[in-house]
Amino acid sequence: MTTQTYDPDNIFAKILRGEAPCTKIHEDDVSLAFLDVMPRADGHTLVIPKVAARNLFDIAPADLARLMPSVQTVAQAVKAGMEAEGVVIQQFNEAASGQQVFHLHFHILPCWTGVAIRPPGGPFQSAEALRPFAERIIPAFRAR
Amino acid sequence: MTTQTYDPDNIFAKILRGEAPCTKIHEDDVSLAFLDVMPRADGHTLVIPKVAARNLFDIAPADLARLMPSVQTVAQAVKAGMEAEGVVIQQFNEAASGQQVFHLHFHILPCWTGVAIRPPGGPFQSAEALRPFAERIIPAFRAR
Repeated sequence: MTTQTYDPDNIFAKILRGEAPCTKIHEDDVSLAFLDVMPRADGHTLVIPKVAARNLFDIAPADLARLMPSVQTVAQAVKAGMEAEGVVIQQFNEAASGQQVFHLHFHILPCWTGVAIRPPGGPFQSAEALRPFAERIIPAFRAR
Repeated sequence: MTTQTYDPDNIFAKILRGEAPCTKIHEDDVSLAFLDVMPRADGHTLVIPKVAARNLFDIAPADLARLMPSVQTVAQAVKAGMEAEGVVIQQFNEAASGQQVFHLHFHILPCWTGVAIRPPGGPFQSAEALRPFAERIIPAFRAR
C-alpha cells in the first residue's frame, strides 16, 4: 500500500545492530524495547521489531502477529514498574502522521490521573537521566 | 496485571451482539471494524476483537496476535479509501489513559499534512453523516 522503502541506516536499525546506544528495557527473539530519548512521559518506552519494516504498512502480517505479544509484555512491565494507572499505545505511520524514525515502533506511554502526556519534540534526555526509569521497569519483567 | 474486570454490557459488546448499531467497515473471524461516532479525523475507524477483553492488559497473547493482522488490513484500507498520507494508531488502557469504553479497541486515524487530529470528546456524528466515509473505505478492501 506504500511506495516508500526501508532505509537500513535509520537510527533504530543502528540500535538493533549495536551501532548506536540505547537504554535497553527488554529484548526477545522478535523485539527490542528501550526508553525514548525524548520522553513524553516518565518511563516512555519504545518497542521495535527485529525485522526490517518501515511501519505498519509493510511489515509481514505474521511478523506483526509475533511482535504484538512482546508489545503487550513490555506494556505490562512499564505499567507495573512505573506504578502507572494506565498506558497509551501510539504508533505512527508516515511523516504526515508524525512518524520521524522509519523503522516500525510502538510507543508505550505510562499515564497517571492528572498528568498530561507531554507534546512531542521535548528535550533530549541523557542515558544517565533515563537510567532510574529503566531500573524501575526492568525488575517488573522478573516479577511477572 | 489488572484487577479490573470485563463488563459484558459495554457498548462495543452490544455492537458485537447486534444489540446496538454501528457504521460497519469490515468484519472477519476475529474482529469488527466500524466508524467512531465521535470522529477525531474524517474516516476515524475502530477495530475491536470479537473476544471479550477489557484492554491490552487482559487479552490473551494468542488472541492479540490473531487480531493485529486485521488491524493492519483495516489501516491499509482506511489509508487507501480516505486517500490519507499517513495513519496514527492509538490504543488506550484504563481510564487514566483516556479509555472510555472498556472493550479493547484500536483507533485508526487517517492523517494529512497540515490537518490536525481533533481533540477527543467532539460532537456525535449520525450514521447518515458517517456513511460517505464508509462508502470510501469499504471498496478499498476489494481493491487490495
